[in-house]
Amino acid sequence: MTHATDAAGPGGAGDQDELVLVRATPLNAETPLAGLRAALTPAPVHYVRNHFAVPDHDGTLHLGGAVAHPLTLTLDDLRRLPAATLTVTLECAGNGRTSMVPLPPGEPWSGQAVATAAWTGVPLAEVMRRAGPRADAVALVFTGADHGPHDGGADIHYVRSLPVVEALRPEARVLLAYEMNGAALPPDHGAPLRLVVPRWYGMASVKWLARIEARTEPYEGQFQTRSYVYDDEGGSEPPAPVTLQRVKALITDPAPGSDLAAGHYLIRGKAWSGTGPVTRVEVSVDAGEWQEARLEAPGEPEAWQEWSFAWQATEIGRHALRARATDAAGHVQPAAAAWNRKGYGNNAPQLALVEVRRSSQ
Amino acid sequence: MTHATDAAGPGGAGDQDELVLVRATPLNAETPLAGLRAALTPAPVHYVRNHFAVPDHDGTLHLGGAVAHPLTLTLDDLRRLPAATLTVTLECAGNGRTSMVPLPPGEPWSGQAVATAAWTGVPLAEVMRRAGPRADAVALVFTGADHGPHDGGADIHYVRSLPVVEALRPEARVLLAYEMNGAALPPDHGAPLRLVVPRWYGMASVKWLARIEARTEPYEGQFQTRSYVYDDEGGSEPPAPVTLQRVKALITDPAPGSDLAAGHYLIRGKAWSGTGPVTRVEVSVDAGEWQEARLEAPGEPEAWQEWSFAWQATEIGRHALRARATDAAGHVQPAAAAWNRKGYGNNAPQLALVEVRRSSQ
Repeated sequence: MTHATDAAGPGGAGDQDELVLVRATPLNAETPLAGLRAALTPAPVHYVRNHFAVPDHDGTLHLGGAVAHPLTLTLDDLRRLPAATLTVTLECAGNGRTSMVPLPPGEPWSGQAVATAAWTGVPLAEVMRRAGPRADAVALVFTGADHGPHDGGADIHYVRSLPVVEALRPEARVLLAYEMNGAALPPDHGAPLRLVVPRWYGMASVKWLARIEARTEPYEGQFQTRSYVYDDEGGSEPPAPVTLQRVKALITDPAPGSDLAAGHYLIRGKAWSGTGPVTRVEVSVDAGEWQEARLEAPGEPEAWQEWSFAWQATEIGRHALRARATDAAGHVQPAAAAWNRKGYGNNAPQLALVEVRRSSQ
Repeated sequence: MTHATDAAGPGGAGDQDELVLVRATPLNAETPLAGLRAALTPAPVHYVRNHFAVPDHDGTLHLGGAVAHPLTLTLDDLRRLPAATLTVTLECAGNGRTSMVPLPPGEPWSGQAVATAAWTGVPLAEVMRRAGPRADAVALVFTGADHGPHDGGADIHYVRSLPVVEALRPEARVLLAYEMNGAALPPDHGAPLRLVVPRWYGMASVKWLARIEARTEPYEGQFQTRSYVYDDEGGSEPPAPVTLQRVKALITDPAPGSDLAAGHYLIRGKAWSGTGPVTRVEVSVDAGEWQEARLEAPGEPEAWQEWSFAWQATEIGRHALRARATDAAGHVQPAAAAWNRKGYGNNAPQLALVEVRRSSQ
């Protein structure tokens, strides 16, 4: 299993280069700043959100249900199919939960349950073309080999579903990945085979993928209709499913919580959205007006956008830095995110406090 | 001036024993944990909220306006009057502002702009008895010797007012203090003479007190009706004045942000309220149910209440600790505080994240 440090403190703001532990068993850990500053997050520091213990899985994939040709593919079979590599930003749906007031139950993620890696594997569409989903299939159900008692009750597997039309449209670029950043998948990231669903919150990207089943009715399992839902968000009823990543910006430099000598700094960070390319990032200092940041060269369409903002840090004392992003669909980070019972989708602008010291100190 | 460190980082959660800097000029700084753990906060680490530079003031106090006997009292005169010593918890009205979403403008206080000291001086009632406020006087106006340009505009003094009936009722115990914790007032705390108004947020306790004027009309200066108001709180119009401290609990142990070996801990802290003695403190771990904490022996009526809660810290990983207080008037900390434009009175339960490590590490 990936090693997680607990040296950085629970705020998640540390400058360390090891995972920041949230829960040891099963492993849940945030990306350290070092892994957020790079364009690609090294696998050992890519955030981990596991629901159960890492299972044994040889990578054999069963395709069945409402398909013309039920198939069983070994990992070697999959490796012989046409491959693709995609750079994808994944974010945990509960990222930023600890900034919600009142605190919702669930893993106490700060703001660093996000990361970007290059995933190599078989496009889901390639595999499904061979299985031939029936015309009346509406959902694909993805089952992970991981399982365990849920809330102390029955033993269940981690299972998630996508609508067929969403999973198989060419622009969705859903991948059955067997490599991460050019090497075999690490155990905590779903070795030897996982689903990678660009633009969706991470719960859609089923690890240790063992089975894909086409269904003629929507799937309604624990992790589909009960765990990952916006429950009572703004009074909404019934709960709405958690789907695409909400537009969000992250400040990586200066490190939140850091002390700086007075001077000129570039505030830097990343921004991403599941609903369209990031078209704008703005920065506010000390609750002042939003000012335009510079977008660096656009990266891959499924990956975060780098940005920067020049800041004259002259006044001695604590300063409050915030950033907010806008995407091509016109979504902009809200001043405050709608609270919901399970604490998902918090994309209010992150608050990064830093301290400016006299240069002579 | 009091020395402020910037070694603790801007989160305010450090375990250091020097003031935590928020602004250098004029000095604004939070109490470090060391000063919050003790029953009495040592003067050098008592939080400081200054609006202007520390003025020269010899302590001469002028009493005038709607009084029968206008008076001028030197500091020696005041020292010869009957004295009282009160242990008083003061809290900045903006304490906790950085936990409000969206972030309001103003000094970016975390949660440690609070402290408790023993103040010695002349009861305001003693002095006013000698001046003899007229029967039609409704307000006492307190002027500090400190002054400066407000928002880059006109030069103004720091001035605050209290209703006569509030300021002079015996239980209010308002003090003209010349000693703090048994020694002369330090410059940043109003030397050589300041007002101390128990139960009110700190803005009422005018430092470097130079003049008291009785008025037959309410006072409407900058710091009375514009700066320290709940503006648009829950949509309220017109803005309501900031007055008494709202009921609140603070966690001091384990230090927020700390790493702990797995084991048995006492969660400890303080709680206070301007609207009545604290009668109950509850603790919630990881967003779980509120559980009764133990109240230690009650202290002085104007001072915070110590409390503790036994916690079995066995699960490895990050944990979310919160505490909430209730007072004798039935006020309880709200799950979320009503947002207001200037960010005052945030008494939502504080979130303290700590990390539990394996004992063997």
